[in-house]
Amino acid sequence: MSEARQIETPNAMMRIDDPREARSIIARGDYRGHTAGVARDYVQGNLCILPRDHALDFAAFCQRNPKPCPVIGMGAPGDPALAGLGDIDIRTDVPGYRVFRDGELVDEPTDILDIWSDDLVTFVLGCSFSFELPLIEAGIALQHIERGSVVPMYRSSIPCTPAGKFACDMVVSMRPLSPADAIRAVQITSRFPGVHGAPVHIGLPQLIGIEDIMKPDFGDPPVIGDDQLPVFWACGVTPQAAVEQAKPPLCITHKPGSMLITDKKNSELAAF
Amino acid sequence: MSEARQIETPNAMMRIDDPREARSIIARGDYRGHTAGVARDYVQGNLCILPRDHALDFAAFCQRNPKPCPVIGMGAPGDPALAGLGDIDIRTDVPGYRVFRDGELVDEPTDILDIWSDDLVTFVLGCSFSFELPLIEAGIALQHIERGSVVPMYRSSIPCTPAGKFACDMVVSMRPLSPADAIRAVQITSRFPGVHGAPVHIGLPQLIGIEDIMKPDFGDPPVIGDDQLPVFWACGVTPQAAVEQAKPPLCITHKPGSMLITDKKNSELAAF
Repeated sequence: MSEARQIETPNAMMRIDDPREARSIIARGDYRGHTAGVARDYVQGNLCILPRDHALDFAAFCQRNPKPCPVIGMGAPGDPALAGLGDIDIRTDVPGYRVFRDGELVDEPTDILDIWSDDLVTFVLGCSFSFELPLIEAGIALQHIERGSVVPMYRSSIPCTPAGKFACDMVVSMRPLSPADAIRAVQITSRFPGVHGAPVHIGLPQLIGIEDIMKPDFGDPPVIGDDQLPVFWACGVTPQAAVEQAKPPLCITHKPGSMLITDKKNSELAAF
Repeated sequence: MSEARQIETPNAMMRIDDPREARSIIARGDYRGHTAGVARDYVQGNLCILPRDHALDFAAFCQRNPKPCPVIGMGAPGDPALAGLGDIDIRTDVPGYRVFRDGELVDEPTDILDIWSDDLVTFVLGCSFSFELPLIEAGIALQHIERGSVVPMYRSSIPCTPAGKFACDMVVSMRPLSPADAIRAVQITSRFPGVHGAPVHIGLPQLIGIEDIMKPDFGDPPVIGDDQLPVFWACGVTPQAAVEQAKPPLCITHKPGSMLITDKKNSELAAF
């Protein structure tokens, strides 16, 4: 059994603590799975690559909606590197990509060397992995992690501020928490404005357009105890919803679960 | 004496609490002075307008250097409005503008209706006014305000992360504080990541390339007591230094001291 073959097992990959080693295995084509748990002290990012013509509007959309769309890295037009996030080649360093043309999914390649061009601009957006770790470290149990399920996500009625072609309502993720944990979670996630920050809503889902909390639009249905409140955070699926509606001629994202692993530590994202 | 004539006196303008009223007086051409103290509960912003070709690189520069270049508003190409900051026409709503061509100051008009075009993109950057107010409210005396002088600013050796043509070292502002006030100031300004956030340095100016603290590159020399530390914040002059070096064919900024008054409250910028 070759070393590459061993690495393909998720468990072997999850034992890798160093983000540079993980990316080099991915870039060689030796790992195409999920990145949850890999180099867990380091920030993982959502990917959105757009043609230059759409990139300025998307930059403005993210600037106007920082809670759902926190930009943690931005490439120069045509440059596959990402200053500040590590020695990254965005064309090869993500385990799986999705290619959308005019808003339709057309391919799921394992690199984008063939479609990369001088016209493309890379955006890396922060994700909730980075704030879930400090919540867990503070002793706050997160149901979807304990149950091995996917966090429930809902299309809310909270409008994002539009920018050019990009316009949509906010997608939110929900974690059921005791009131004491909810207060503590507000304090802790407030420290991480670069990865969604403080919750956007607590307690009354109908006020943000959620009719049935047991029927999420994405992810798994929750269990909410009588002693728990639903706590809602802005969710990184929001920019995907904006891209779906804008239908740019080309858009490249990561394959869900297969994110960009950066050299930035989660702890570096703390605002204070 | 006409109403317009009365408004030209700075004192009359400073008594205006409503940012919409202040902007409407400015847009009519009835006030061309400084904005310090006008609508003081509201965020004032530094202005940088660039051609579309340079705007993406500048957006990336700001994204990579959020402490000196905190973007609080971004327009769509060709659109003089600024979603989220109020009912603004950026061509008329600032008391004074500076026009730079190839990095050289060529004009100081009072509106930019004639040079506005579909090719231009507006950036509004947060400024230290917004964090000085909560410092003062917390009982921390700020020397330059008490003495009516301009805060001392220095070209430091702290490198900004470059993006395209934009590259420079960070300009920093300095406020002398007692150690206890310095600690409290770290806590307070940490709450405002959108307006430079926490200090970038405390106490040892030579470590960040400042040879003589008594000779600032901009602003007035400080007085530093034996019981005080120099506390340094990233400064909004930094993007101007970046633009000076990049020499874009066209760049429009506000005239120093004559800033954009927005409808956003300073308190809204608190991260927690």
